[in-house]
Amino acid sequence: MRASRIYLDYNASAPLVDEARDAVVAALSIVGNPSSVHQEGRAARALVEAARREVAALANARPDHVFFTSGATEAASTLLTPFYTMGRAGLRLSQLYVGATEHPCILSGGQFSPDCVHTLPVHANGLLDLTALKAVLSAHDKSQGLPLVAVQAANNETGIIQPIADVAATVKDAGGLLVVDAVQAAGRIPLDITNSCGDFFIFSSHKIGGPKGVGAIVAHSDLVMPRALVRGGGQEKGHRAGTEALPLIAGFGAAAKVARERLAAGGWPADIRDMMEAGIRRIAPDAIIYGAEAPRLPNTLFFSLGEMKAETAQIAFDLGGIALSAGSACSSGKVGASHVLAAMGYAENVGGLRVSAAPETDANTVDRFLDVLRAIVERRDRTKANPANAA
Amino acid sequence: MRASRIYLDYNASAPLVDEARDAVVAALSIVGNPSSVHQEGRAARALVEAARREVAALANARPDHVFFTSGATEAASTLLTPFYTMGRAGLRLSQLYVGATEHPCILSGGQFSPDCVHTLPVHANGLLDLTALKAVLSAHDKSQGLPLVAVQAANNETGIIQPIADVAATVKDAGGLLVVDAVQAAGRIPLDITNSCGDFFIFSSHKIGGPKGVGAIVAHSDLVMPRALVRGGGQEKGHRAGTEALPLIAGFGAAAKVARERLAAGGWPADIRDMMEAGIRRIAPDAIIYGAEAPRLPNTLFFSLGEMKAETAQIAFDLGGIALSAGSACSSGKVGASHVLAAMGYAENVGGLRVSAAPETDANTVDRFLDVLRAIVERRDRTKANPANAA
Repeated sequence: MRASRIYLDYNASAPLVDEARDAVVAALSIVGNPSSVHQEGRAARALVEAARREVAALANARPDHVFFTSGATEAASTLLTPFYTMGRAGLRLSQLYVGATEHPCILSGGQFSPDCVHTLPVHANGLLDLTALKAVLSAHDKSQGLPLVAVQAANNETGIIQPIADVAATVKDAGGLLVVDAVQAAGRIPLDITNSCGDFFIFSSHKIGGPKGVGAIVAHSDLVMPRALVRGGGQEKGHRAGTEALPLIAGFGAAAKVARERLAAGGWPADIRDMMEAGIRRIAPDAIIYGAEAPRLPNTLFFSLGEMKAETAQIAFDLGGIALSAGSACSSGKVGASHVLAAMGYAENVGGLRVSAAPETDANTVDRFLDVLRAIVERRDRTKANPANAA
Repeated sequence: MRASRIYLDYNASAPLVDEARDAVVAALSIVGNPSSVHQEGRAARALVEAARREVAALANARPDHVFFTSGATEAASTLLTPFYTMGRAGLRLSQLYVGATEHPCILSGGQFSPDCVHTLPVHANGLLDLTALKAVLSAHDKSQGLPLVAVQAANNETGIIQPIADVAATVKDAGGLLVVDAVQAAGRIPLDITNSCGDFFIFSSHKIGGPKGVGAIVAHSDLVMPRALVRGGGQEKGHRAGTEALPLIAGFGAAAKVARERLAAGGWPADIRDMMEAGIRRIAPDAIIYGAEAPRLPNTLFFSLGEMKAETAQIAFDLGGIALSAGSACSSGKVGASHVLAAMGYAENVGGLRVSAAPETDANTVDRFLDVLRAIVERRDRTKANPANAA
């Protein structure tokens, strides 16, 4: 009998939770367009609004401050713009400051021209350098517009959790706006947009057990909003045009509910991650665990096996029945060097292996993972001792 | 026994075809991120590419010239930009020319500043004024950039089919680019992007029986492409970042296949639409059928009942068990005046009732529709004769 595959790439895309699947399937039967005024349209509208309440609750936000997008990347491309409005007045954001370990959708700078995008350094432990943030914001010339800062709540590769409250206070002192990429943090650690934690959160459905293809901008208030990126009809109060992705939004709402209830029930224990980490250190004493000195997400572990190439190890794990990633998945299958590790001071060509577990990952999974790891490390060491064994 | 509802608002959102539903549901079980290199990721990738082939086939395009978006509105917002590339070189489009009866996502002008967006008139029959098009393109100053023209293949309200081949020839002569909003035409009339019919088609999944929340840009070639609107990872060859909406894309592909096979089997007969039209004229001799002098989609009928307000009639139909729309659905439930009719020379405040049928709409449906219409018209006439009966 062939053992079932083990999926440890939750940060790339989380398997759909049953509640989200049911919601998607139920919504597929709603024929109406949520903008239509007939009975079918109103049924569709009700589903969208119910989901909006669930997504809002995950961030303790007001439902009318949640704006659905096609995913986190679109949300980022929308928020990272020099053109905001405050009520009906225009509000200019002149420069964008982004953390060095941000996701590519933030590092791309959205609608800013490249010369207006500035990278904020992180310490060797992966945490944002708050002194540097203060310094650049002090030097920011407000006569051209306000500063826009974008920092992730938690890193997708290392799981490192940034001190968002401190970042938010610093940005607020400087009169700027803060966009928090909460994609990997959502559902794994508590988030509260009313608690001085930035002006906008970015959420992605498929990272919390919902379907792929939907995300949200969660705003602290809807007074200050970015100019719409996707324009046309008046959907999402004019902030995001286009017929709502009804089944996905319904699934996103259901997944948000599950995630919120899990957090309310005590959150996501880190013991499975810690068991894996201890096992890796035992089996491969030359392993490096990245970000271990900083607070991390309870499900994420980023490591390398001495000098073994991450992509080689990743393939070996895949053949061994375990799906994990070498770096992040967001760059169309590109593997290899990690800009996150480079920002933390590691050599440019260093890559890591990411294990990201699901809430249901158990001790049995850890054992199987460690068995495969042991075989990979033993083969590596045999090959090192006698290169002729490489075949 | 309560009679089942009749859905005649196919142009607002088409009910999901069974094949698309099955494809969505099957794709929900694929856990991988299409950008991941492990087995789960490759399974996801294979699904995306299979769907791409189906969507391409609907336009006789090459699969690698299909770029998935979150819907037609995002596709329009992406294509309507002054910033294109030709290979690695920049290509500047200085002015945008759009038909007066276009969808709001085209009329909005996308990324163009409002002073660079120009409206092209239509004749009283709803067809684009080609002489006017030639004149504005002759007057276009190419020293600032090329002209970009956006014209719909078929109108969402009236169903009027534009002479796209003639438009394309005119735009090509002027050295411009043509974006064809093929959202309502797709699957209802044959489309072939290799047949001198413009540079880009815009498709929407949920208008052809696929799920809401996904669409595509279909390009004649990928040499000339708009600057990405949604930026981040390298998905869709860098033209559209963000994790692919796997279940929706799979459903879109399945719906495209059904639509293509229906067209190949002889297309969509107009007899049901014609039966309805004859019935309306019989029951309400004062009815106006809009666009009847132009080629129209086989499923679309736009009319008004004398001086009866469209929204009043729409509500009466809804209460009578029939879902149809007053104008289009794309503007968040706004009803009333139609910019399409205004462009055709009707008074500014004129609205219409749109009946848009599904392939499976049958003669029985027509009978029930006409029964409800008869009751509405009789009540209207009674009220007109004696306003006290209005209650």
